[in-house]
Amino acid sequence: MDIEQFRRAGYQAIDHICDYYYSLRSKAVAPQVEPGYIRRALPSAAPQTGEAFEKVVQDYHKLIVPGLMHWQHPRFFAYFPTASTFEAILGDLYANGIGPNPGFNWSASPACTELEAVVMDWAAEMLGLDATFHNASGIGGGVLQTSASDSSLVATVAARSRFIRQHPNVPAEKLVLYTTTQTHSLGKKAGLVLGLNVRALAVTSEDNYALRGATLKRALEEDAEAGMHPFMLIATVGTTSSGAIDRLEEFGDIFAAVPSLWLHVDAAWAGVSMACPEYRDLCLLDDINKYADSVCTNFHKWGLVTFDCSTLWVRERKNLTDALDITPEFLRSKHGDAGTVIDYRNWHLGLGRRFRALKLWFVLRSYGVRGFQRYIRQTVQRSDTFVSLIKQSAHFRLITPPCLSLSVFRLEPPARSFDQGQFNALNRAFYARLSARQDVAFTQTDLNGTICIRCAVGAERTEEADILQAYEVLCEEASKTLDAWDRMEKREN
Amino acid sequence: MDIEQFRRAGYQAIDHICDYYYSLRSKAVAPQVEPGYIRRALPSAAPQTGEAFEKVVQDYHKLIVPGLMHWQHPRFFAYFPTASTFEAILGDLYANGIGPNPGFNWSASPACTELEAVVMDWAAEMLGLDATFHNASGIGGGVLQTSASDSSLVATVAARSRFIRQHPNVPAEKLVLYTTTQTHSLGKKAGLVLGLNVRALAVTSEDNYALRGATLKRALEEDAEAGMHPFMLIATVGTTSSGAIDRLEEFGDIFAAVPSLWLHVDAAWAGVSMACPEYRDLCLLDDINKYADSVCTNFHKWGLVTFDCSTLWVRERKNLTDALDITPEFLRSKHGDAGTVIDYRNWHLGLGRRFRALKLWFVLRSYGVRGFQRYIRQTVQRSDTFVSLIKQSAHFRLITPPCLSLSVFRLEPPARSFDQGQFNALNRAFYARLSARQDVAFTQTDLNGTICIRCAVGAERTEEADILQAYEVLCEEASKTLDAWDRMEKREN
Repeated sequence: MDIEQFRRAGYQAIDHICDYYYSLRSKAVAPQVEPGYIRRALPSAAPQTGEAFEKVVQDYHKLIVPGLMHWQHPRFFAYFPTASTFEAILGDLYANGIGPNPGFNWSASPACTELEAVVMDWAAEMLGLDATFHNASGIGGGVLQTSASDSSLVATVAARSRFIRQHPNVPAEKLVLYTTTQTHSLGKKAGLVLGLNVRALAVTSEDNYALRGATLKRALEEDAEAGMHPFMLIATVGTTSSGAIDRLEEFGDIFAAVPSLWLHVDAAWAGVSMACPEYRDLCLLDDINKYADSVCTNFHKWGLVTFDCSTLWVRERKNLTDALDITPEFLRSKHGDAGTVIDYRNWHLGLGRRFRALKLWFVLRSYGVRGFQRYIRQTVQRSDTFVSLIKQSAHFRLITPPCLSLSVFRLEPPARSFDQGQFNALNRAFYARLSARQDVAFTQTDLNGTICIRCAVGAERTEEADILQAYEVLCEEASKTLDAWDRMEKREN
Repeated sequence: MDIEQFRRAGYQAIDHICDYYYSLRSKAVAPQVEPGYIRRALPSAAPQTGEAFEKVVQDYHKLIVPGLMHWQHPRFFAYFPTASTFEAILGDLYANGIGPNPGFNWSASPACTELEAVVMDWAAEMLGLDATFHNASGIGGGVLQTSASDSSLVATVAARSRFIRQHPNVPAEKLVLYTTTQTHSLGKKAGLVLGLNVRALAVTSEDNYALRGATLKRALEEDAEAGMHPFMLIATVGTTSSGAIDRLEEFGDIFAAVPSLWLHVDAAWAGVSMACPEYRDLCLLDDINKYADSVCTNFHKWGLVTFDCSTLWVRERKNLTDALDITPEFLRSKHGDAGTVIDYRNWHLGLGRRFRALKLWFVLRSYGVRGFQRYIRQTVQRSDTFVSLIKQSAHFRLITPPCLSLSVFRLEPPARSFDQGQFNALNRAFYARLSARQDVAFTQTDLNGTICIRCAVGAERTEEADILQAYEVLCEEASKTLDAWDRMEKREN
């Protein structure tokens, strides 16, 4: 493809994206395709001779688009949002277009490192993170990672490395990584990847699935007695299942007494809401600033930056570089050797890295802090509408207090004396129906044995009408679920 | 930004990329900026009110572009190439434009998983990888990772997990990961990240820095005697420093005798050349097919796909999923539970993942196998031109036999009886001059104590004239280096 062919194909791609967003609301949210549908449609090998780009694009429309979940759809309430914006798409296009610039060290493409260091400070400032987390501090700092899993893996590697330096005689099998039973799968996965013991501390429905100080304290005592060495706690501000916020405010004395315990705060989803002053207390910003050794939030979730853009800040960058610095000859450079620049390769697991700072910069400048706040507030407001409908409903019950733009509920019709097993069976049947719908998308979850449904609001285009429509779908499927349940019961009696 | 504003800004971005490629050859390759230049130019916080997108783009041109290394420049010979194509840029644009679709499991966006499974088979077929590595086998399979470092980390986690399942009583500190002294930093980093012992086996200049079977055999014997348990060898086909290819053909008996030793072949750079039948013997394809448990190559290096696109194949997918499967309720789905689909979240370290298969598909279809081969051959041919110039030169000497499109040389002028230290000092001085040039980019390396310069050809737009021009720069800087050296010697005497 020559430059003029690219210009035409590029305009066409831009036009396609415009068409897509014009028609988004009228599309089905979820695809209906069967496993193997693409394999059946494509030849078993790449063509020998190159094909016309136009033909590739045609196949893209014919084959790929029908199999996509539309995460930007105004009635997508599954998982967590991945709020994408035109500004971020353009940022990535500029970065790709004249790149790639795998800025693994400063000199590989100085602008990449320079901009990342600055824009991470902008983001830290917007969220209210303490100045010690800023790159400008020269001591702490921020770095972009691929996902919250990567961020917590990096933090865990740094935490383990610090602990081993402080306690060189503790064998690896005596180390313990603390999570809670509600921590995102990233906790368990960090344990698997790093070969570490993971202890998932219990949380209760009475505490709204948040970790309490007393539980942490007891666990530390038990492990000390058992000769184990907890070296890190991954606490969550806004769990995936229910938006629970671990009670960091109860951890102060504990972290003072056990300074070798690294606190990583995974605020992957909820963290960006700290851009709004009114949500900072809820997210325990003061406690993050007081106690956290590292904190992560994903701008690619609820932060208007197209995937991937996971922001990780550490209190002491030295803990990253001590754990990850490898400097072969071919990566040495004048400025790196002199320590005058950041070499981001020592701040993450791999070597090469995309120039992701550009899209974050485009978004922060285009929206400004106020525009960012407006978006966050709007999604919380939409969620509040949903919550009020659930609260007024006779059929549904909230299972936990809603958190920001996430609510968790289940089908719990009145005048039925169900036990937990029956409620769970009913809600699994309800969810099976819901997930067969193409006009909405929700996700189910299991809160300490209670099967329920999550509603995560976050798409920029979600309006009140979408919330009402989604609620109607819930009511409709609830009725059908109950009818089917009753018919089944009748047959059984 | 509304949809029509996006259309205008999108066209503008496409136009900018066109301008960029029209003017690429006339640009400086390397930037000349000082550390901190962006921080000094930008405010210390994001703006409160959103700014006009036009202003952001202006600042991009003013601030970012001057600080970029131009990796696509026809006279960029540093590191390894990151050959980007319009087709791949468009693939990523389509993926971003109507996404993101973080296809961590099949149902999160079926097309993403479906296409990745197919296109990884296309790539495997094109490179001549055995059918056991294909997803269609149902046993082995391929998955896209971010970088070769990630690929080898994933392979190492799988290898360690398999070894521990087979040898549950071996403590972690007795495990050893084998690399060579010429393995990419990814080996050392895997050790750091995973907290594993790494033993870098020695390679010699006589063997052109390739690992020999006898060295491996001796190491295994020594470690067995010492009660250590080597569980994996990361062998390299095409090392970063010099393109060395570890002698897999000598490993057959060893792997037969020690089946628990996992062989990961890191062919990050050279692997894509196996698309050309004439390079398959050089790359030891038959031996890869016979012995490797996993193999990685980066289409984002020398494979025409814009970063990131690291292809990893494993002989048994079960080794990945046994090591990495965590399935919380919110990720469970009908098809995943039934095992009828791939859930790629269990094939990599994180959870969310970009829809990278699309750009690889766009490239393979648009180029076809023959177009891909043509590009590879063309870059090797350009490199051959460079090598013949070096060979004819009185000033330079090749340090190892060239490998594909990579050559390593040093300044070694005749009629000087330098010792190694003097040659190294001379070449450091030579490289310091070279790296101050803006019209070419090379990287230095250290081969067992010999300081030398690498020339990696790979940009699609590199022509004979660029090679000649680069060679002239080398001659010019060599003369200046020698003059300065002589002046210094005179002063000292």
